[in-house]
Amino acid sequence: MQPRVLGIDDAPFHRDVDKSVPVIGVLYRGNQFLEGLLATKVRQDGWDATKKIIALVKEGRFRTQIEAILLKGIAVAGFNVVDIQKLYHDTRKPVIVLMRKKPDMESIQTAMKNLPSPAKRWGLVENAGEIHRIDRVFCQMAGLTPKEAQKLIRLTTARGNLPEALRVAHVVASGLARGESKGRA
Amino acid sequence: MQPRVLGIDDAPFHRDVDKSVPVIGVLYRGNQFLEGLLATKVRQDGWDATKKIIALVKEGRFRTQIEAILLKGIAVAGFNVVDIQKLYHDTRKPVIVLMRKKPDMESIQTAMKNLPSPAKRWGLVENAGEIHRIDRVFCQMAGLTPKEAQKLIRLTTARGNLPEALRVAHVVASGLARGESKGRA
Repeated sequence: MQPRVLGIDDAPFHRDVDKSVPVIGVLYRGNQFLEGLLATKVRQDGWDATKKIIALVKEGRFRTQIEAILLKGIAVAGFNVVDIQKLYHDTRKPVIVLMRKKPDMESIQTAMKNLPSPAKRWGLVENAGEIHRIDRVFCQMAGLTPKEAQKLIRLTTARGNLPEALRVAHVVASGLARGESKGRA
Repeated sequence: MQPRVLGIDDAPFHRDVDKSVPVIGVLYRGNQFLEGLLATKVRQDGWDATKKIIALVKEGRFRTQIEAILLKGIAVAGFNVVDIQKLYHDTRKPVIVLMRKKPDMESIQTAMKNLPSPAKRWGLVENAGEIHRIDRVFCQMAGLTPKEAQKLIRLTTARGNLPEALRVAHVVASGLARGESKGRA
């Protein structure tokens, strides 16, 4: 009745300073019980997000508990794009990418042109498949149907539009970034 | 009805390696809603815990929201003891120290003798006042009565014996430590 989901978000970062960016995974049971936290780092605008998130899920202490993976947007640490088909394939956990707004694909494609291998990055975005509107958010998914995704999102959301796992992953990642940058000053 | 409390816990650390130890503060509303996260660092067996936690409360983004400060034990990062009277005095927020077991004062005093200024450390422990049993935990407090502390603990606890703010501060601090030490290897 209360599915366990891993919500993943990255920390805010300074484009010119931070080569590696913390990524936080929060394990939530249903919409109110935080059960665990995992952390990794990925390269800004790099190519390691998929591999690092797969490792977080497969090698972390919660691999048997996690029933689905939730991402806030298709990329972390700038344009380090997650290959959600591979993430699903390698972990056997369904993946949902949630977005508050419908992404502006044209401006994403344009922005990618300033980075190495834009076509390869764009391929990963396209590979994530069709964008579905589910209640008040937009989603891409791998390993489950829009109807199954809707059920999961509803069971794991408390207030607001995003599942608690994603809301809390954001609070933790951004709180840490602030604390750390303060410590550095 | 739903008090906001800041639950503070430190990360696990390696005695011979880590000079500074992360300390996490989690802002919870009542017993189910995580609203914020603050982070700082203190020195292992040092003297800066009180000052750093005061700064976290007074300079952090939640200074007006925090209604009470909860600590898991009187010290962080080994024997970096918190002066809870000063913490209460400087922040004007009531402080509760929670412990699962009744502390063995004699063995604490003995352990402190291996560190600089044991008498001064011990003074801070004594300064925290009488230990009260409240439901299933033991508490020291500053700025509120045992009855008020009991009410606050009950309103902020979900399952288990500890308020969610403390349970989650522990999950976050230890998850980060694992993630970070993995990154280092």
